[in-house]
Amino acid sequence: MVQTATRSGSEARRTAILRGAADVFRRKGFHGAGMREIAEGLSMAPGALYYYFESKEDLLYACQMLSLKRLLRSGRAIAAGGEGAPSKLRRLVRAHLGHILDALGGSFAHVEFHALPEPLLRKVVSKRDAYEGLIRRILRAGIAEGAFRETDEKLAALSLLGALNWTVVWWKPEGGRDLEAVASHIAETFLTGISA
Amino acid sequence: MVQTATRSGSEARRTAILRGAADVFRRKGFHGAGMREIAEGLSMAPGALYYYFESKEDLLYACQMLSLKRLLRSGRAIAAGGEGAPSKLRRLVRAHLGHILDALGGSFAHVEFHALPEPLLRKVVSKRDAYEGLIRRILRAGIAEGAFRETDEKLAALSLLGALNWTVVWWKPEGGRDLEAVASHIAETFLTGISA
Repeated sequence: MVQTATRSGSEARRTAILRGAADVFRRKGFHGAGMREIAEGLSMAPGALYYYFESKEDLLYACQMLSLKRLLRSGRAIAAGGEGAPSKLRRLVRAHLGHILDALGGSFAHVEFHALPEPLLRKVVSKRDAYEGLIRRILRAGIAEGAFRETDEKLAALSLLGALNWTVVWWKPEGGRDLEAVASHIAETFLTGISA
Repeated sequence: MVQTATRSGSEARRTAILRGAADVFRRKGFHGAGMREIAEGLSMAPGALYYYFESKEDLLYACQMLSLKRLLRSGRAIAAGGEGAPSKLRRLVRAHLGHILDALGGSFAHVEFHALPEPLLRKVVSKRDAYEGLIRRILRAGIAEGAFRETDEKLAALSLLGALNWTVVWWKPEGGRDLEAVASHIAETFLTGISA
């Protein structure tokens, strides 16, 4: 019991650190962010931060993986549901924006994945590929259902991911467009664009 | 005459350096790229590279500005033409992909602009805003013409820019989709998505 409580406390601490780090990455870019600054933002001693994460690359990797795991988990649940493809895509778009803009506070990390060293990059790319594959399967199902026109579903998936991921570059909570408005605009324009 | 020839030779050299640097940024990310590596790729001594560009930030800034100037120049020429808005957007999409994928050899620099220090970042952001404004004007003209439905033209412009700019993350010349195919897919899906 005690061990479980400690472990979940440590998990919560790690998540709080990732949220703080993601915020600094977003404001300064990966290159401009420093471990010291990330620690200061969390009112931690730098040494305490290094206890959780060995390096800035480690932090970026953990940000990426956390956000990709959430994207995959919600994406799989949506894909497995009984609705039609258009409604699945609408929910996936909303969940995607929630994960990349809300959960990690505007995670620019999602864009700067090329800053990762090779073995970590490979793991991130494989999760990204799985997520892209999931979107392509929903698109193919929609074409088979007759809801979407025949289209290059790889290009369609990547265009949608582009519109979604680019929000981390421009979206700000105080910018006058809430997440719901952005999600419904992107989903409706895309769904109309590929509708049969 | 001699001076002009020298200046244009030096301009050509600078452009060749930017192309080489953009290629290294794309493969390694801004963080992972080194001045030495960029110089080696160009068969230059590092000292010769520093003669043209003081730092890696300087190089990234020059890459950005070159590509933004090209985007703005072609965007303004297209916007000033006599065609309808849908046809202007089709041409802008094609020109955009040409500038970011062809001219600077897959310039990942276009995505990593947050790595720039503050005063340079401000100049880049102001050019980006001008380009976004240009797309929004074409969108408004299309709504006024009755070609596009009433839509939030800021969200529409940013979604289109997202789909376009994200190509630097995934597009490869050898990947089986040529620029024309990508441009026409993105343009058609977007234009159908916002059509009246």
